[in-house]
Amino acid sequence: MSRVYNFNAGPAVLPLEVLEEVQAEFLDYQNSGMSIIEMSHRTPTYEALNAQAEQDLKDLLGLGEDYRVLFMTGGATTQFSLLPMNLLAAGETADYAVTGMFAQKAFQQAQKIGSAHAAVDLAAEGFKRAPAVSEMKFSDRQAYLHITTNNTIYGTAWREYPDFGDRTLVADMSSDFLSHPFAADKFSLIYAGAQKNLGPAGTTVVIIKKSLLAKSPENLPEIFSYNVYAKNDSLYNTPPVFAVYVVAKVLKWLKKNGGLAAMGELNGKKAALIYGLLDRWPEFYRGHAQTASRSMMNATFRLPTEELEAKFVQQAEAAGFVGVKGHRSVGGMRISMYNALPLEGCAKLAQFMEDFYKKNA
Amino acid sequence: MSRVYNFNAGPAVLPLEVLEEVQAEFLDYQNSGMSIIEMSHRTPTYEALNAQAEQDLKDLLGLGEDYRVLFMTGGATTQFSLLPMNLLAAGETADYAVTGMFAQKAFQQAQKIGSAHAAVDLAAEGFKRAPAVSEMKFSDRQAYLHITTNNTIYGTAWREYPDFGDRTLVADMSSDFLSHPFAADKFSLIYAGAQKNLGPAGTTVVIIKKSLLAKSPENLPEIFSYNVYAKNDSLYNTPPVFAVYVVAKVLKWLKKNGGLAAMGELNGKKAALIYGLLDRWPEFYRGHAQTASRSMMNATFRLPTEELEAKFVQQAEAAGFVGVKGHRSVGGMRISMYNALPLEGCAKLAQFMEDFYKKNA
Repeated sequence: MSRVYNFNAGPAVLPLEVLEEVQAEFLDYQNSGMSIIEMSHRTPTYEALNAQAEQDLKDLLGLGEDYRVLFMTGGATTQFSLLPMNLLAAGETADYAVTGMFAQKAFQQAQKIGSAHAAVDLAAEGFKRAPAVSEMKFSDRQAYLHITTNNTIYGTAWREYPDFGDRTLVADMSSDFLSHPFAADKFSLIYAGAQKNLGPAGTTVVIIKKSLLAKSPENLPEIFSYNVYAKNDSLYNTPPVFAVYVVAKVLKWLKKNGGLAAMGELNGKKAALIYGLLDRWPEFYRGHAQTASRSMMNATFRLPTEELEAKFVQQAEAAGFVGVKGHRSVGGMRISMYNALPLEGCAKLAQFMEDFYKKNA
Repeated sequence: MSRVYNFNAGPAVLPLEVLEEVQAEFLDYQNSGMSIIEMSHRTPTYEALNAQAEQDLKDLLGLGEDYRVLFMTGGATTQFSLLPMNLLAAGETADYAVTGMFAQKAFQQAQKIGSAHAAVDLAAEGFKRAPAVSEMKFSDRQAYLHITTNNTIYGTAWREYPDFGDRTLVADMSSDFLSHPFAADKFSLIYAGAQKNLGPAGTTVVIIKKSLLAKSPENLPEIFSYNVYAKNDSLYNTPPVFAVYVVAKVLKWLKKNGGLAAMGELNGKKAALIYGLLDRWPEFYRGHAQTASRSMMNATFRLPTEELEAKFVQQAEAAGFVGVKGHRSVGGMRISMYNALPLEGCAKLAQFMEDFYKKNA
């Protein structure tokens, strides 16, 4: 079958060029006579790949020697627990901005581990926007402030990060990581599950300020400790080799294609195509997010009736647009437009949406 | 480069047929117009793959409705912590048979989490054998007894499992899982990192008796809970899709090729080729493991001098035998012969070893 336009929310579309490279070398990696998935992680070949991926990611984010990049197993959901296990000491409180379902999950897991507080909670409003810092109530002995930069399910995001002041700022960036330029050095810790903008499911990138590493408790099981991961260059145990290998290729692809600035521009154009239709026919394409908080990665909207929504999904799939159905919490449609989704995909979907409006409004 | 003979201890050789299938369908999985790594884990396609893999594994082991198979993230090292977090209640003690380095690590992590006791500890002897049950000292309120069936680094294993009585028997089978027939229903829990006999690094299989699931504490973070994993059919969060997908193919390959009985026979033949030389020239090929405790997966031996050992490694690599160098804890050589290593590989290596003896003894 020819390649579809993949609007999946994650796991999601990856650059075709990267996939073709993986395929071409799958039986014989770098003339080794074996597949990358058959190779020991203790070889100079894998160690070089692992080290280069850390450096490439720091290059893309403009980060220097005061940060480490860890390639951990599991997803962001694993980090929901590991984060407070590492950085929330007794007597401190972790503040969470509860701006979507995964933000809420992060908050709930932290409550199982230590003292956690909702600095702001937008659940009652239905998660339609990114909050202002002035709305947040912070704890006195704040271990860190946790934000979720993009809310995949609700399609909301901070379009620009506000000034959070001199706090230990931690962000779950799983769903908009590397999609636009931003000042990474304002963050003390960033984590991102790979399966949206970065690679296959199975690894999560953790970018951490070196000065925070000392906070990992000594009595924490090694496998959960950021400090142990950093000391061992993410090779304390066997890493998820294949996932890290694909991530390393995606990072090279990003560098070759203009880095975050180029991605930000491309993603802005793609999102404008979709949101343009929401602005043109707001009674038909009923956006969930408030305009100022619209995600560039996931556009969510409903149609006037559930029958029309079902018809939209069915006709979109038939036309080769996969994954447009919204999450059950919001209903309707969700159009995910990660870095690797070509502009053409959004242009064709926008044309489909225009036609669909004209036939059904 | 042509395919080498891959004696790596893990990640390790996988069936060429499986690798070729992965490569062939890598850009378009089952006519979906996308790669398996771009596909949502919430699709019927992935859910079917996941369910079939559980069933195939239970078929291979002859297990019924009273067991669940979980596909978790991370490696066996992650399970070293998750196991006591789930199954070691306050007031109980977990007993560990310390028979190798990973057994020791499992024991040490358990001590961080609860009350753990070494039922037997062979460190002082240099880990040369599998102990008898009569040597073990058990705790009164025993949560479980943990054994490591095969010790990759030292090349020791239980050739047949002794009768451990009516205990909650837990086994780390990472390095000999599915390599021979055994009575799986004697075990309450089996775990195995995929990267030896099962697939790529990045997932660990946990096979657990359903009756044990209720022991996972309610206040445990969901992502660490066997019970949550079981309730969600391993889809509580985004699973390591690619790793599980390859494991599913390896399981089908095993079924097609005669299952555990055929693997046991093949692995016996391969091991006999290597151990035959150790028995023939024991002054030259100096085996680490005691004869009755020899591993069928990892044969470890030393040569009379370190110079000869270096020469062996160098000439073996030049002849296309990769990964024969031993772990630094034992030194010398380690020949890993997992399921997917063809008999021919061991036959050629045995010939090389015979020639090497004749030239250097």
